[in-house]
Amino acid sequence: MKLDDIDRKILALLIENGRMSYSDIGKELNLSRVSVRERVNQLVKNGVIEKFTVVVNSEKVGKSVSAFFEVDCEPAYLVEVAQKLADNPNVASCYQMTGPSTLHMHVLVEDFTSLEKFVNNELYSLKGITRVESHILLRRFKSRSGLKL
Amino acid sequence: MKLDDIDRKILALLIENGRMSYSDIGKELNLSRVSVRERVNQLVKNGVIEKFTVVVNSEKVGKSVSAFFEVDCEPAYLVEVAQKLADNPNVASCYQMTGPSTLHMHVLVEDFTSLEKFVNNELYSLKGITRVESHILLRRFKSRSGLKL
Amino acid sequence: MKLDDIDRKILALLIENGRMSYSDIGKELNLSRVSVRERVNQLVKNGVIEKFTVVVNSEKVGKSVSAFFEVDCEPAYLVEVAQKLADNPNVASCYQMTGPSTLHMHVLVEDFTSLEKFVNNELYSLKGITRVESHILLRRFKSRSGLKL
Amino acid sequence: MKLDDIDRKILALLIENGRMSYSDIGKELNLSRVSVRERVNQLVKNGVIEKFTVVVNSEKVGKSVSAFFEVDCEPAYLVEVAQKLADNPNVASCYQMTGPSTLHMHVLVEDFTSLEKFVNNELYSLKGITRVESHILLRRFKSRSGLKL
Amino acid sequence: MKLDDIDRKILALLIENGRMSYSDIGKELNLSRVSVRERVNQLVKNGVIEKFTVVVNSEKVGKSVSAFFEVDCEPAYLVEVAQKLADNPNVASCYQMTGPSTLHMHVLVEDFTSLEKFVNNELYSLKGITRVESHILLRRFKSRSGLKL
Amino acid sequence: MKLDDIDRKILALLIENGRMSYSDIGKELNLSRVSVRERVNQLVKNGVIEKFTVVVNSEKVGKSVSAFFEVDCEPAYLVEVAQKLADNPNVASCYQMTGPSTLHMHVLVEDFTSLEKFVNNELYSLKGITRVESHILLRRFKSRSGLKL
Amino acid sequence: MKLDDIDRKILALLIENGRMSYSDIGKELNLSRVSVRERVNQLVKNGVIEKFTVVVNSEKVGKSVSAFFEVDCEPAYLVEVAQKLADNPNVASCYQMTGPSTLHMHVLVEDFTSLEKFVNNELYSLKGITRVESHILLRRFKSRSGLKL
Amino acid sequence: MKLDDIDRKILALLIENGRMSYSDIGKELNLSRVSVRERVNQLVKNGVIEKFTVVVNSEKVGKSVSAFFEVDCEPAYLVEVAQKLADNPNVASCYQMTGPSTLHMHVLVEDFTSLEKFVNNELYSLKGITRVESHILLRRFKSRSGLKL
Repeated sequence: MKLDDIDRKILALLIENGRMSYSDIGKELNLSRVSVRERVNQLVKNGVIEKFTVVVNSEKVGKSVSAFFEVDCEPAYLVEVAQKLADNPNVASCYQMTGPSTLHMHVLVEDFTSLEKFVNNELYSLKGITRVESHILLRRFKSRSGLKL
Repeated sequence: MKLDDIDRKILALLIENGRMSYSDIGKELNLSRVSVRERVNQLVKNGVIEKFTVVVNSEKVGKSVSAFFEVDCEPAYLVEVAQKLADNPNVASCYQMTGPSTLHMHVLVEDFTSLEKFVNNELYSLKGITRVESHILLRRFKSRSGLKL
Repeated sequence: MKLDDIDRKILALLIENGRMSYSDIGKELNLSRVSVRERVNQLVKNGVIEKFTVVVNSEKVGKSVSAFFEVDCEPAYLVEVAQKLADNPNVASCYQMTGPSTLHMHVLVEDFTSLEKFVNNELYSLKGITRVESHILLRRFKSRSGLKL
Repeated sequence: MKLDDIDRKILALLIENGRMSYSDIGKELNLSRVSVRERVNQLVKNGVIEKFTVVVNSEKVGKSVSAFFEVDCEPAYLVEVAQKLADNPNVASCYQMTGPSTLHMHVLVEDFTSLEKFVNNELYSLKGITRVESHILLRRFKSRSGLKL
Repeated sequence: MKLDDIDRKILALLIENGRMSYSDIGKELNLSRVSVRERVNQLVKNGVIEKFTVVVNSEKVGKSVSAFFEVDCEPAYLVEVAQKLADNPNVASCYQMTGPSTLHMHVLVEDFTSLEKFVNNELYSLKGITRVESHILLRRFKSRSGLKL
Repeated sequence: MKLDDIDRKILALLIENGRMSYSDIGKELNLSRVSVRERVNQLVKNGVIEKFTVVVNSEKVGKSVSAFFEVDCEPAYLVEVAQKLADNPNVASCYQMTGPSTLHMHVLVEDFTSLEKFVNNELYSLKGITRVESHILLRRFKSRSGLKL
Repeated sequence: MKLDDIDRKILALLIENGRMSYSDIGKELNLSRVSVRERVNQLVKNGVIEKFTVVVNSEKVGKSVSAFFEVDCEPAYLVEVAQKLADNPNVASCYQMTGPSTLHMHVLVEDFTSLEKFVNNELYSLKGITRVESHILLRRFKSRSGLKL
Repeated sequence: MKLDDIDRKILALLIENGRMSYSDIGKELNLSRVSVRERVNQLVKNGVIEKFTVVVNSEKVGKSVSAFFEVDCEPAYLVEVAQKLADNPNVASCYQMTGPSTLHMHVLVEDFTSLEKFVNNELYSLKGITRVESHILLRRFKSRSGLKL
């Protein structure tokens, strides 16, 4: 699927306000409500828009500790470990990267006690993990939503 | 602000579908459309909901390379560098972390040529940067939207 | 438990001189001996004061080598190893930290021969330890007592 | 100064209870109150006992984040940086170690916001600092007081 | 075998153009075609010239990702792993180096999906591999052919 | 340019023997000498074949030490340093990679004395270099020619 | 044993010339030949002088490659590995150090082929070794003999 | 100079006992005293034997701390720093190695106070040093004299 300029403008508006009505989008871009709806449906159908969602402030819902983990595994266990971690509700994202570490993971928890429990009970108990490195978020300079990293 | 159970259920529904109508949410949770709207307005006003948005597939809009950077700065330049990077459209997020590196940054670009240009022209040209380490995303196991990391 | 200003002043005096009499504290703060005693008892009962103690100069009692260890364990053995090390009289403190290493430990021994014996006989003999890194204290710039790290 | 067995027993009792009365110590060790007092005075005079103090629970006085820092400096600034850090009330201890890092420092602060401020305003602003690495305490297995590390 | 000046001049010409005719080489160096042929045959026979070949642009034949790997093995498996990797058609070169890593390997693949598959299916599945580090080529400043590294 | 099966077979033959005559290639692939020549000319014109060359055994021409370097530069000097290194006849290749190091370089020299001279006189004398790491080749398991890394 | 000034002067002379006759030493220090002999005998008996020896130029006896190794072992095998390495004639010295590595070893061999064989056949074949790092000597600025490191 | 078997046997005897008389060596090897002396003179003249010396036990002459340093310098200052360190009487040896560090140095000092002073006053005060890493010797498994490393 090739996106044209109008598709990109619709995406830009929806990234800024995912509940913007199709007629308001139409007014902004000089299009009919119907043609906006058709284009949005097409973007969803082709997987360009994966989801309409809200950005929730994690601290205000009680997740005040944001941590990054580098998880080294025995190669034979990598995919199994990654999939178990992906199923863990404390895990926000989990990637395999180039470089020295096999899995890069973002974790959101209530507080330090929860983090210590997550580490000792849910992470260290997985078979095949050989080494874990963790870092805590100190300050956010930019945290873009709307694009899947 | 204290969230009650109904607030959390509304958030859960909106995370899954950010355009769900207030009457559909009301039906699901046994509430009137009006009281759903009031609660959502309250969640927005208190900063619990930061934004309604869409999750866009970065590869389908032509951003096929996803990279993580560790950027070391001279301490005196840290905030200045972080703010310039936060203004760069290729930078998806930029954090200060505990651990050995001063800035952790996510970058989304079209391809390797763009990445090399970003590194040499937009990153290395900033005053105060002393060392850069980069890693490329190989495989996504989980990439949660809806919660600000 | 909420501490008020007077509690904090009492703590400050006791940190500087743990044997200061309650009437001397009272004079300093314009309180009766009895009310000082009651507040101190309350601080002990609530766990704010964990212990009255003395700071002993480790070198003058013959512990002239002060070493820091980073101890990596197989995840499944971490708690067991940590508890055995905590029971070792040469170990002054033992923590689990974020970052690359699973256990951070402070050790005080008589001399280098004791350190080598501690390493080879008491540390390396523990099941589950995979790697050890040690550093020796060269110079103290500050060593505060009175607050539990 | 050579310590004998009785000195060591007195130290052991005072480490466990720094306010124990000299007559109670005397009863325990079969000594007169006066000879206990003389020995204690001698231990203080010779610097074996550096201080009578209390161990305060840092979390209960509002210092809930305990962090370790490795601070690299330009060699010419090391002593100056170390002395400024030693004067900082958030710094609990500051050592020069063997190994890769020039200064090892323990910091106690109220929360993550204070930590971020300490790092950006009080640490990074010092002339001569080239690199900082920080780790957060997750779990205490042993934290001995009474001996100066 | 000792090379003389004429041998070196012949090599230099053939490195620049491996299909240069022996009479053209002869004209350039003031030699007969026959004596050039004899010298070249001698250089091949003595293993100075290992192969006549072409330098193919890897991107133009669809190998657009060039990666370097550091592969750590259990010592007992090193030679076995190295020989299996040398047999893999994606592996362009494989060396044992001094320094921290046991095997240094260059890999050429079509794209990132192929790289991820190579890593997870062909590299991590080898018995004896304990850790892998990978880096992607961003920019070529020099890439000399003609000399075996 | 799209390569077809015949182009790939011609390339495979030339990689193995860069001086193979066009009529021999034609016989092998059931083509006329003329059409082989046309296809080879086309491959050269389109940059698929970059060069006809010979693989020379570096040890037999007196280059017995093969070293890899990681060169860290001040960002502002990176391209300048890379280009100077690329011009150095001892440098076989020079790349910018992802990961921790800014330049990756292969060097071929006569012996250890030459290596030490290269390091101290030709590498350390370049403005902007902050750190150098070197490794020596111990054993070759595979060293493929014919594809540009 | 306490050394006096004359002992130290005798040692200094013998370090510079281990075959200096006792009468020449005596003349230099204003002592009788007999009293020099007695003092030297005493220094040998008390282990101050461990050995009279010669410093041999390793390159001139055909040991042209000098390498340093960091050898990591499973803790349980450390002493066994160290003793086997100490028995190896290629190993010049072998120490246990503080810091990240368990054994530090100096090796002298004829050439690179011998080094590669030592690594693959004599080092990697030892049970309990988990990781090896090697560095090659490029240039000697000082190499003092006469004092046991 | 080519060594024959008899030269090697003489060297082996002198390494074990540098004061062995030439007639005793002659008896052992079936040679005349004169021909032993001639061969030894030849070995000295050709630089095979660099020095007759004694191995002194460093701890018994009061040098109880043996430390290894990795010293990183700005490239432009490397040789100057190395030569100043070589002139320092606390420095036993100083080498330039392959790998990550520019200078590798062995230091022998009386005690920890001397080590701290050496580091802060004699090492950190040199212009051009950017980073220092130190390790302390814990246990000697082998310490060969007689061959220059």
